[in-house]
Amino acid sequence: MNRVLIEGITEAYTATGNGAVTRSDVMLRIEDAAILVEDDRIARIGTREELGRDLPADVARVDMGGKVAIPCFVDPHTHLVWGGDRSDEFNRRLHGAGYVEIAAAGGGIKSTVRQTRAADRDALAAKALRTLDTMLLHGVGTIEAKSGYGLDLETEIKQLDVMDQVSAAHPVEMVQTFMGAHEVPPEYAGRPGDYVDYLNRELLPIVAKRGNVPYVDIFCEKNVFELDDSRRHLEAAAAHGFKIRMHADELHPLGGAGLAAEMGAVSADHIVWASEEHMAAMAEAGTIATLLPGTSFFLRGRYADADAFKQAGCAVALSTDYNPGSSHTVSQALMMALACMNMGMTFEESFIGVTLNAAAAIDKAATHGTLEVGKKADIAFLDAPSVMYLVYYWGINHVSDVMKDGNFAVRDRRRIDGTSA
Amino acid sequence: MNRVLIEGITEAYTATGNGAVTRSDVMLRIEDAAILVEDDRIARIGTREELGRDLPADVARVDMGGKVAIPCFVDPHTHLVWGGDRSDEFNRRLHGAGYVEIAAAGGGIKSTVRQTRAADRDALAAKALRTLDTMLLHGVGTIEAKSGYGLDLETEIKQLDVMDQVSAAHPVEMVQTFMGAHEVPPEYAGRPGDYVDYLNRELLPIVAKRGNVPYVDIFCEKNVFELDDSRRHLEAAAAHGFKIRMHADELHPLGGAGLAAEMGAVSADHIVWASEEHMAAMAEAGTIATLLPGTSFFLRGRYADADAFKQAGCAVALSTDYNPGSSHTVSQALMMALACMNMGMTFEESFIGVTLNAAAAIDKAATHGTLEVGKKADIAFLDAPSVMYLVYYWGINHVSDVMKDGNFAVRDRRRIDGTSA
Ligand SMILES: [Zn+2]
Ligand SMILES: [Zn+2]
Repeated sequence: MNRVLIEGITEAYTATGNGAVTRSDVMLRIEDAAILVEDDRIARIGTREELGRDLPADVARVDMGGKVAIPCFVDPHTHLVWGGDRSDEFNRRLHGAGYVEIAAAGGGIKSTVRQTRAADRDALAAKALRTLDTMLLHGVGTIEAKSGYGLDLETEIKQLDVMDQVSAAHPVEMVQTFMGAHEVPPEYAGRPGDYVDYLNRELLPIVAKRGNVPYVDIFCEKNVFELDDSRRHLEAAAAHGFKIRMHADELHPLGGAGLAAEMGAVSADHIVWASEEHMAAMAEAGTIATLLPGTSFFLRGRYADADAFKQAGCAVALSTDYNPGSSHTVSQALMMALACMNMGMTFEESFIGVTLNAAAAIDKAATHGTLEVGKKADIAFLDAPSVMYLVYYWGINHVSDVMKDGNFAVRDRRRIDGTSA
Repeated sequence: MNRVLIEGITEAYTATGNGAVTRSDVMLRIEDAAILVEDDRIARIGTREELGRDLPADVARVDMGGKVAIPCFVDPHTHLVWGGDRSDEFNRRLHGAGYVEIAAAGGGIKSTVRQTRAADRDALAAKALRTLDTMLLHGVGTIEAKSGYGLDLETEIKQLDVMDQVSAAHPVEMVQTFMGAHEVPPEYAGRPGDYVDYLNRELLPIVAKRGNVPYVDIFCEKNVFELDDSRRHLEAAAAHGFKIRMHADELHPLGGAGLAAEMGAVSADHIVWASEEHMAAMAEAGTIATLLPGTSFFLRGRYADADAFKQAGCAVALSTDYNPGSSHTVSQALMMALACMNMGMTFEESFIGVTLNAAAAIDKAATHGTLEVGKKADIAFLDAPSVMYLVYYWGINHVSDVMKDGNFAVRDRRRIDGTSA
């Protein structure tokens, strides 16, 4: 057994628990802390003094020299794999171009679909690996990643293959989601129902057989996949054993949040326009509200009503929605800042949103998202006077070191091979 | 003469000009660029092919390996030197505490004044040097820095001394502002006029004698220094030869922007509530509108109306307002993102705002703020596919290398001694 005692931690800060929480009175703060890691797990955590007693003889020691320890961030909603970029379109938008105009010029999500179809696996993998590196350097240990820039059998499978490939090669842990229903492809323009039939008939069985794609997601939105088509796709997915997540009520109050609750979805995401009735239904169903403030920022749109979800008793997670069009960032610390400043969340709520509740949003709260005995040794270290600096001194990356699965993957702001601590 | 040819630049991007601009059709973009640096100046800039001809024989070469080159950011409004922090108060604010409640609990700017008075020079200097390092690593080459957390002779002078000390020890270039009128100190509670008399009588002559403090600034605000007191202080400052900058119309439409124009101020800052009449007066007077979107973000307040300043013909600069209470960040790239997303600026306008117009806001546009022949070799290099990524891929630091005054001060994201290229 590999045993490491991590010392030199001015403050360890974490939520506690093995499932999503709806209150923020679960925070634990230990000053002058130490953490005993055994293989890939946290074996003990407490004050340095407490852990100094009765130490196993074979323990190695690592002195962090005065860092803050937090659980690695979990990012429960990313579109990791795509080709090209949309930086041109982005500035056209700042110059006043509207969505319709941009789409008419070949922009928007269809542009990324074109570029992803055209890209070869190695190019997609290289780009995704760079993104995973950036995420890791910013303290992210685990992500959810979606397909959905293929919209045909070949390219959707190519995206999932690339996820397999980069996941095997990188310390950042990944759970996969099939999102063939991210948009209606040009081949099915104006025929979303036919496209859903195609997905249900041709893709769901093949993706289900892969065995490592637990989720199906859909962009449930006006003029894209409306409620009936969404329901038909998600029911077919459920019949194959997939768990459900949804892009719901992002741009219009269509009722996706209600459908998510009805389907027992693990998470409903965006939900900017969800009704109070549907929030209550989500709370009842245990569907997590995954809010994406980066998308609201990037699209200059309305923010989700975090307080209303809280009042409704919904657990709230936060995510970047990393993607090339509507939210091109990987910083969960910045999502905390946006949630605090633009959505009225407290520091504690935003912290839970990117750790424990984010882990719950991908069914990993039993093993991820907190610094507690038995959980994964996924620890981010901050070079900062206190954990509060994550938001208080915003816009800079405070993460200096990252341990993932008990191994240091980042030391002194550099990626290292994560093979041994 | 020290001659260095910098190659391996995929794209050099800069505004052009030697003074503030009110239009954004001054951008220059050179693909596959090279820059010839002679001592601390840019001697030539053009395509690699152009610069490859007729090179001086003694030129050294540096290959950047494919980076984007931009002028170093200029940050024209920072409160660099202070003691303690206000992270606790920050989270109390997120928990709903109001300004009055926080002030009653000893918080707010008076808390920083207490902590700055109590701090010794070395502690203040060490903290300021860390901040300068972070600024430099984020591409900032030149800043304005204000006193104003002393509010008494001894501590204001201590702050200026610390600025001298850290400025001499650090590559980031600094221009100093005396801001004794940042707040009414407890000793003069309810008597702002008496405090202004004290400043005019005791401090202005001493600060004027230092010879390296070109500016005086004042927090012209309701219940702090209102128009009459502000005018009296600024007129006394002008009589000593100081140039004027102002915190104006931040929280209330008091008319500070009009006073700034009347006084011929170099810059009026914040100006969230400036009237159109006063914007026109600023344009007429050549007073730059320095907008501070980070403060609006951090205080969850209203943003300045960038478009109205543009329509009025005002040159617009952007700054972080770096300080412990109302805007604790150093990232000018994030100010660009906030300006684009929350203030309706285009990429080009925001870029000019943190480079050329920011330089103009501290009277340095003739030598700083662009990549042009004869200007300072202050160059930030981005590890990104295009300059657009500064905002398009927001929330991460793209700056990998920084040349300041012709010497590399940052290489591969690390500070190095800036003694030779
Ligand atoms: Zn999404
Ligand atoms: Zn200020």
